[in-house]
Amino acid sequence: MGGVQSFREMCDRTKNTNIRLSLPAVCVVWEIAMIILFGVFIRYNWESDAHWAESKHNLSDIENDFYYRYPSFQDVHVMIFVGFGFLMTFLKRYSFGGVGFNFLIAAFGIQWALLMQGWFGSLDYSDGKIKVGVENFINADFCVAGCLIAYGALLGKVSPVQLLVLTLFGVTLYAVEEHIIIKIIHARDAGGSMVIHTFGGYYGLAISWMLYRPNLDQSSRLQGSKYHSDVFAMIGTLFLWMFWPSFNSAIAGHGDGQHRAFINTYLSLAATVLTTFALSSLFQKHGKLDMVHIQNSTLAGGVAVGTAAEFMLTPYGSLIVGFCCGVLSTLGYVFITPFLEKHMKIQDTCGIHNLHAMPGFLGGVVGAITAAAASDTVYSHEGLVNTFDFKDEFKDMVPTVQGGHQAGALCVALIFGIGGGILVGAVLRLPIWGDPADDNCFDDEAYWEVPDDEENIIPNIQYNNHMQNKDVLESNFSMDQDSRPRS
Amino acid sequence: MGGVQSFREMCDRTKNTNIRLSLPAVCVVWEIAMIILFGVFIRYNWESDAHWAESKHNLSDIENDFYYRYPSFQDVHVMIFVGFGFLMTFLKRYSFGGVGFNFLIAAFGIQWALLMQGWFGSLDYSDGKIKVGVENFINADFCVAGCLIAYGALLGKVSPVQLLVLTLFGVTLYAVEEHIIIKIIHARDAGGSMVIHTFGGYYGLAISWMLYRPNLDQSSRLQGSKYHSDVFAMIGTLFLWMFWPSFNSAIAGHGDGQHRAFINTYLSLAATVLTTFALSSLFQKHGKLDMVHIQNSTLAGGVAVGTAAEFMLTPYGSLIVGFCCGVLSTLGYVFITPFLEKHMKIQDTCGIHNLHAMPGFLGGVVGAITAAAASDTVYSHEGLVNTFDFKDEFKDMVPTVQGGHQAGALCVALIFGIGGGILVGAVLRLPIWGDPADDNCFDDEAYWEVPDDEENIIPNIQYNNHMQNKDVLESNFSMDQDSRPRS
Amino acid sequence: MGGVQSFREMCDRTKNTNIRLSLPAVCVVWEIAMIILFGVFIRYNWESDAHWAESKHNLSDIENDFYYRYPSFQDVHVMIFVGFGFLMTFLKRYSFGGVGFNFLIAAFGIQWALLMQGWFGSLDYSDGKIKVGVENFINADFCVAGCLIAYGALLGKVSPVQLLVLTLFGVTLYAVEEHIIIKIIHARDAGGSMVIHTFGGYYGLAISWMLYRPNLDQSSRLQGSKYHSDVFAMIGTLFLWMFWPSFNSAIAGHGDGQHRAFINTYLSLAATVLTTFALSSLFQKHGKLDMVHIQNSTLAGGVAVGTAAEFMLTPYGSLIVGFCCGVLSTLGYVFITPFLEKHMKIQDTCGIHNLHAMPGFLGGVVGAITAAAASDTVYSHEGLVNTFDFKDEFKDMVPTVQGGHQAGALCVALIFGIGGGILVGAVLRLPIWGDPADDNCFDDEAYWEVPDDEENIIPNIQYNNHMQNKDVLESNFSMDQDSRPRS
Repeated sequence: MGGVQSFREMCDRTKNTNIRLSLPAVCVVWEIAMIILFGVFIRYNWESDAHWAESKHNLSDIENDFYYRYPSFQDVHVMIFVGFGFLMTFLKRYSFGGVGFNFLIAAFGIQWALLMQGWFGSLDYSDGKIKVGVENFINADFCVAGCLIAYGALLGKVSPVQLLVLTLFGVTLYAVEEHIIIKIIHARDAGGSMVIHTFGGYYGLAISWMLYRPNLDQSSRLQGSKYHSDVFAMIGTLFLWMFWPSFNSAIAGHGDGQHRAFINTYLSLAATVLTTFALSSLFQKHGKLDMVHIQNSTLAGGVAVGTAAEFMLTPYGSLIVGFCCGVLSTLGYVFITPFLEKHMKIQDTCGIHNLHAMPGFLGGVVGAITAAAASDTVYSHEGLVNTFDFKDEFKDMVPTVQGGHQAGALCVALIFGIGGGILVGAVLRLPIWGDPADDNCFDDEAYWEVPDDEENIIPNIQYNNHMQNKDVLESNFSMDQDSRPRS
Repeated sequence: MGGVQSFREMCDRTKNTNIRLSLPAVCVVWEIAMIILFGVFIRYNWESDAHWAESKHNLSDIENDFYYRYPSFQDVHVMIFVGFGFLMTFLKRYSFGGVGFNFLIAAFGIQWALLMQGWFGSLDYSDGKIKVGVENFINADFCVAGCLIAYGALLGKVSPVQLLVLTLFGVTLYAVEEHIIIKIIHARDAGGSMVIHTFGGYYGLAISWMLYRPNLDQSSRLQGSKYHSDVFAMIGTLFLWMFWPSFNSAIAGHGDGQHRAFINTYLSLAATVLTTFALSSLFQKHGKLDMVHIQNSTLAGGVAVGTAAEFMLTPYGSLIVGFCCGVLSTLGYVFITPFLEKHMKIQDTCGIHNLHAMPGFLGGVVGAITAAAASDTVYSHEGLVNTFDFKDEFKDMVPTVQGGHQAGALCVALIFGIGGGILVGAVLRLPIWGDPADDNCFDDEAYWEVPDDEENIIPNIQYNNHMQNKDVLESNFSMDQDSRPRS
Repeated sequence: MGGVQSFREMCDRTKNTNIRLSLPAVCVVWEIAMIILFGVFIRYNWESDAHWAESKHNLSDIENDFYYRYPSFQDVHVMIFVGFGFLMTFLKRYSFGGVGFNFLIAAFGIQWALLMQGWFGSLDYSDGKIKVGVENFINADFCVAGCLIAYGALLGKVSPVQLLVLTLFGVTLYAVEEHIIIKIIHARDAGGSMVIHTFGGYYGLAISWMLYRPNLDQSSRLQGSKYHSDVFAMIGTLFLWMFWPSFNSAIAGHGDGQHRAFINTYLSLAATVLTTFALSSLFQKHGKLDMVHIQNSTLAGGVAVGTAAEFMLTPYGSLIVGFCCGVLSTLGYVFITPFLEKHMKIQDTCGIHNLHAMPGFLGGVVGAITAAAASDTVYSHEGLVNTFDFKDEFKDMVPTVQGGHQAGALCVALIFGIGGGILVGAVLRLPIWGDPADDNCFDDEAYWEVPDDEENIIPNIQYNNHMQNKDVLESNFSMDQDSRPRS
């Protein structure tokens, strides 16, 4: 800990948020690298190549995987860009950064994810090319989700360059971790409780611990919401909540698998809403509801049912998981987040511990138990084989052993999250990334041209009142609005 | 009427909006009840159960009902949560309540709807279980829509606990009414003009009449919109408008039924927009458009074409319905809503009479006429049987008689709406639900932790100006922003 | 030029924005015309008619074109109404006009587009009827997109009546141009780089040139954004960005065509985001990002890949197109838009030159090159025939010639855009349309009932401060809020 501390101090030089060279350089160099790598490696897969017309034989056009998965893909896509993006607009002066940097790092990450996940999962050894179709793009969105979760812990405290580095390493770690969990351990995780949420959550928390800012209270005037920024955040919450059934079912098995994953997620989320409202009211003075809880904890049920969504969790099982998650997640906001900040030196802006890390861990446990309890009676033999992919080298696997593998997978996700986060956090402490000073956090002014509006006008009025000069005030008032013409 | 009046007075005690015990208690007890009932009754249906892999035989995976209905389901889901939710954010200080309570009661209602509608419609008598699949979830969303419509009339004047009670009874009434209309009377109502909108509209208006507040003008300072709250409401309007074709086609027949329902709804809505803009401009001083009309009346065409959407209404028939609805609904906002408030003691915050009740009634009439005019020539024999479900015990039904049944169904919806609303309204007048006082309506402060922002800052400035002390002002100003740190 | 100038002066009479007669008249007369024309011409097509049940024979219900295209249709629909609508809310006091007039002209245009495009493309010569199904509705949305793009150049400077005229002529021109390009020249343009974006972009720019306002700087106080209006605009940006893959694939060939169009668009857009952020930072003082670029230039990659999206552009080819577009479009905002305004008398409020016109032109060029380079090896013979529709009278076409046809089509789009825009612009200069005066542009007050809120409150405070009378201030303050009760 002492070593970490002194490393921290070494890195805390004077901050300069000018990223005029570093941001363009990283973006352009990286995009050129992507073009080269895509040129060498990425090709259309069977179902998206023009040869399909000849080679599909008797298949109907509608049986192209595109029609199974594209509606779900689009829902997931909305979750990544509008869902995560708007959920992070809640801060009163960091809405541009919330939605804008989310946009940047997601667009950056999906390209790298196609490559990384492709090398591990879609490489055609006959010609050394990665063949991509709609399922790869869903997986790329999933992969990026892990990094966006981590961003939630760091919201307002890091520069866009740091976020790009976080995403570069995050996607890399994710692809390795996913390969180990899905292919080597042969765990099932359709909705990513372990692979996405546990990994992403602890990855973000570990980075936040490495980037601990003891004097963050210097920015506390901006570390809250405004009335309208809370309404904007509800856009994010609702699109995440509504489309979570698509998230958990997007890459589940065709037919009953997708159908069941949607049902389980829908029910779990519905239950979570009720217990979140209950706990939020119970723990506030006068029983008033807290927007932080409503915006975040209502989603925890979708996280916790991710692994087990395609299993025969049963409808009431889903309700039970959702019920517990609403309670746990809201308690997390009331008790654990302050505790983490005070005693663990983990500053978690969006409370991802309560929305992703803890429910994701719970989801891994639920998945392990549900898998271990599976049986031929409940699933039918063919159903069991389909659901758990007991084929090829795993054709002799039994549910109880599968449960153990699920538990092992959860440990892998934890280790990658915490270990990777500490390493990447160390890199991000280097004093070269353009992050804001402690008294300049949560402020869009650092990285954005911010239009003047009512908040900036008010100080002018104060100033002018003392002049008692109406004319000056009015000219000043209109100058203010003229000063930054658009386009 | 005298009895009602004295009952009203008896109930109007001093108001206390503290719901710290009642809200958590209702939510938690209810959710536990749901878990028990789901455990006893709800199971996956054939297409979402893992046994499907064995029992589907020669069916392609893509013929699972999931792929027919899930995209429509998601559109309906967006309408329920974002559409209705954001449409109700228009009030300047009740956006949290608009979108937040909409979220709560929808999540609450869909669970109860799955049970209630399941008992009536999806009960498998062989094992006493309700078997659910994607169509049940669409129907649950539909059922909740009826309650959210009712909420529109009461927006800003009731407590969340009252809303949960309204929803509990509303869903129950809806399920019975739907069973009578669809199964017993054998009326067709794919888009729910009668079942959802007529019922929900009159249910809400009747409750509002029971909860009449003679001194509501004490809250009139908050009974309007702000510039940005009107823009938020447009999010709701547009998502409702865009996805209404999915709403009306979601449970229509596979193939041409869904296809035609989408076309009719699309055209009706397009026509409504033009006449709404026309009438809005015509009835305002200087021809200025009124956001209230644009936000609401543009949607009336979707309501009015609900019953007839899957019929051979013809494209120009849809345009005519939409044309009339835009006119009627806008006139409703200009003349009928003030009349209802002044002379009928019905305070209708969102104007649901003009958006749901009246267009829904009109839709029932259009449906009855279109059904009565159906013929083998227009539909083909098989088309007629498919569209009107002239099978089994109704295989001898003829279109003219079907028209009569449709008219009868409309009466049932009216009776359930008005009768149910009066009963539930009586329950909601009891002085135990934590509703706000007359001078405290339309204000999020009653039930939410509201962040301080510019509106709250202005009174401070006024106050401090009298001190003529700039330092005090500034310190106060920053304290204000510090006073409620987030998370 | 002199003639144009004197015509301009002739038309610049005193402005009167009262549209109480003209707007309702145009809307109602037009809608009645639509009903008559739909009654004469428009019928359900084979797949949406009730006869389908009998005539589909062995087809599965799921092979109804509805299930191939409806999810994409809904995404396109969201782009038209929420995407374009909210993208145009960025102005501080023109959000109502941005989203509201977008709503009006889109709803108006789609009806006329169904007729115009139907006469050219879906007319059944056996009975003289236009038979419509889901693909027609996608095409109608596409057609309207052209007019909405043109609106972007004129945002804040025209009356709704002018917009309806612009749309009436725009749709007509579009349908003729599309017929020439697709049917006569036999060019391919699934995503409409030429047909939609090049045409729409230059159409809008030419109209803007005809409507040049030398004294527009009188409205410069309103020609910028506010903090929250920029966040609203991001809703539009993101929905456009996320659903652009659906836009470009919506009418592509079933199966691999749609699949590939989605992939190419997705990748191009991802690359554009990175270069847009890079250039935006590079060209601003202190490296700060400009919301104008992020809101607009990030979309240029979707425009530029429109024509080639269904071709075998290859994944890295898509990245290259996106890379270049992000650079070009951002440079356009920095250099070309000011140049156009200063030296070419083209005032382009939203910068459609950089988002649509230029990338659309580039997209046409990319399409021509990609088509010319096509081969049996890359596509397979059947794939080539399918992708380029080398059937019937074009069965002997070869790719190199097709490339020439694509280039010719691009010229047609340009000519229709510029020529049509000049003609329509001349009509719109007539002093009868109710457009605002130069000092009254970008202001919703001209056409909307605008609620009073904080911006209007501030002048009151100024005024009252001079009275030094707190009571007067407070009563005034509350009167203000009471003065326009809602509904």
